[in-house]
Amino acid sequence: MTIGPGMRKTALPKGFRVSGVNCGVRRYRPDLGVIISDRDAVGVGVYTQNEYKAAPVLYCQGITPSDGIRAIVTNSGQANAATGPTGVEANARMAASVAESLGCRSTQVLTASTGVIGTPMEIEKIVASIPELLARATDSAEAFALAILTTDLIPKTVTTQVELSGGSVCITGICKGSGMIHPNMATMLGYLLTDATLSVEVAQSCLREAADLSFNMISVDGETSTNDTVFLLANGASGVSVTSESDLVLFQSALVELAQILAQSIARDGEGSTKLIEVELNGAPTQELARQAARGITISPLIKAAIHGEDPNWGRILARLGADGIPGDSLDQLTLAIQGIKVMELGVPVLFDRAAARARLKGDTVNITIDLPGGEGSAKAWGCDLSQKYVVINAEYTT
Amino acid sequence: MTIGPGMRKTALPKGFRVSGVNCGVRRYRPDLGVIISDRDAVGVGVYTQNEYKAAPVLYCQGITPSDGIRAIVTNSGQANAATGPTGVEANARMAASVAESLGCRSTQVLTASTGVIGTPMEIEKIVASIPELLARATDSAEAFALAILTTDLIPKTVTTQVELSGGSVCITGICKGSGMIHPNMATMLGYLLTDATLSVEVAQSCLREAADLSFNMISVDGETSTNDTVFLLANGASGVSVTSESDLVLFQSALVELAQILAQSIARDGEGSTKLIEVELNGAPTQELARQAARGITISPLIKAAIHGEDPNWGRILARLGADGIPGDSLDQLTLAIQGIKVMELGVPVLFDRAAARARLKGDTVNITIDLPGGEGSAKAWGCDLSQKYVVINAEYTT
Repeated sequence: MTIGPGMRKTALPKGFRVSGVNCGVRRYRPDLGVIISDRDAVGVGVYTQNEYKAAPVLYCQGITPSDGIRAIVTNSGQANAATGPTGVEANARMAASVAESLGCRSTQVLTASTGVIGTPMEIEKIVASIPELLARATDSAEAFALAILTTDLIPKTVTTQVELSGGSVCITGICKGSGMIHPNMATMLGYLLTDATLSVEVAQSCLREAADLSFNMISVDGETSTNDTVFLLANGASGVSVTSESDLVLFQSALVELAQILAQSIARDGEGSTKLIEVELNGAPTQELARQAARGITISPLIKAAIHGEDPNWGRILARLGADGIPGDSLDQLTLAIQGIKVMELGVPVLFDRAAARARLKGDTVNITIDLPGGEGSAKAWGCDLSQKYVVINAEYTT
Repeated sequence: MTIGPGMRKTALPKGFRVSGVNCGVRRYRPDLGVIISDRDAVGVGVYTQNEYKAAPVLYCQGITPSDGIRAIVTNSGQANAATGPTGVEANARMAASVAESLGCRSTQVLTASTGVIGTPMEIEKIVASIPELLARATDSAEAFALAILTTDLIPKTVTTQVELSGGSVCITGICKGSGMIHPNMATMLGYLLTDATLSVEVAQSCLREAADLSFNMISVDGETSTNDTVFLLANGASGVSVTSESDLVLFQSALVELAQILAQSIARDGEGSTKLIEVELNGAPTQELARQAARGITISPLIKAAIHGEDPNWGRILARLGADGIPGDSLDQLTLAIQGIKVMELGVPVLFDRAAARARLKGDTVNITIDLPGGEGSAKAWGCDLSQKYVVINAEYTT
């Protein structure tokens, strides 16, 4: 897989172009982006399970799945959540304005918003900028990736080619997210684009599995947003179909890997983060408990603060596993390693060199592996450390 | 109610004495305490629901409820959790040593521990100090309240007299807790002492209700400890029984009020805390949802950080309520006030003076009131703000 994060140029699948401009809602940085497919694309989405959904989420839920998507327009700075009927109207105008310029119907344009909740949308600025936005469309992902950022420090893109029986297809992913990250089903904003030909049903099931193994297993702060959305657009421009079982396996595994890379990039760029935390948990009584307990480690402020302090404080990991429902008799047989150093083996604390352990925690990635006896449940989750900077960022964000 | 927090002298109920000394586990500060009843007391407990329970919790669960309790011995600095069979043995020796000095059976002595998880108990130091500990017993609560503190800054005691039909009884409460605070059923360490005469059954139900409305509704960091315990001892030394329905109501309401004062004192003294957050939520579809959503506000790092920054960032409150399961159609009718300033009324954002709101957030207590339409569920919860100091404390605690 060719990973294209950061400011390097990231290729788009055939038939897609993207753009990003500053429309004047935010100062000095792009705040409006669009993804355009030059032909009708299969478009599916997975959306936040927060009961309080933003206007664009409600709108897109009504449109997808679809086989006629032509564009996704996204603004940053204002979330269009808790904005009432005027927010619904603003969202409809954003879609209609793009549709008019492209010469398609409004229902062929998806929308997403990210930013402060409860602020009225400055829709006139957005609508006025759409002609320029569309005119600037290019064939690399960066302009769009930059336009959707909020407190993120790093644009997040990745692209890969998958060799299928009928030829090669491209998948490109773009996402954003840094705070209010604890996706439940979807996440932050994610855009997966491919020039493969997929049916609506296959697209939906591929997206759901990819989201479950990636975006749904990251957490920055345990907060589920009102706007979380991941889209998958498949426009068939490669002329290559994903139909056989073996092609589906190849395509699906590439999509999962790509989604996991994007998800990790969000956790690593979490607000105030200095380290990526990777948790691998095996042997839980059930799959659901494995997922819950692995995610529990990544949202524990005590564990996150200890890792920030490069402190192998393993007692907090045990306490958290017990709090999240791993049975006590299972914990009595647990083997736990931090950065490959065993701190507990089959339930017995291991005497380890604390200075050496601290040294291994100095890197920018920290692995925690948990082996429980017997069960079938296993999961991987990703998070980040908790720093003083997280508090500073979030004590000062709106005002 | 006479509140006796801090360093003022706090009276104990008749027939109780307490003590605290330094046994040498911690430097320069008391780390071993005991509560003694001069006669057999009814003793009940509520304990952590963490699956990974400390040795003293497992021990006390085997002894309570009891009508023959004579003492509770508690050490701070070492939690006696994740300590294996040697921890179980150390706990038994701690109880036996107190029992021997008092001339009673081991099963008449309860135990509790608080401190670092996974550190072996320095039991020889503890046992060697027990004669001096017992010799120093006095009739005010402070020596014990100080001996059980860990990262707490303030000892927490409260006492009250309740006038019952048969005469006056005294209830005194002592507790500790500052981090790893998100009790599930019990909490941190809490000790409620009374000279009233209670049956075991009445004591157990009084304690459970008091804990549910107080300790179980506070959170500092969403972490459920391995050691959470609240005890209630009733030794009958006042000669006044709680038997009639009206006496029971008086006694129970005094116990709840006292437990709530103690619980609030823990939240206010949460690690790094500068403000107490009080959440009152009314009109949820169910009582359980009300409790969950009210607590959700108190564990949200984004809301806690905003309050630390004295920022009336109400959108985060809406997002959290939706994430914690309050139905969307209910949120569409919500009225929300922060420090008495309405920011949303019947689902519509209210234009409010942001500077004035910020000024009202400068105090050491912040009220959030949430009114939903129609439902019967209501709850109060308490928490604290999230400061940079929380991170500093927990990045540095063990090493």
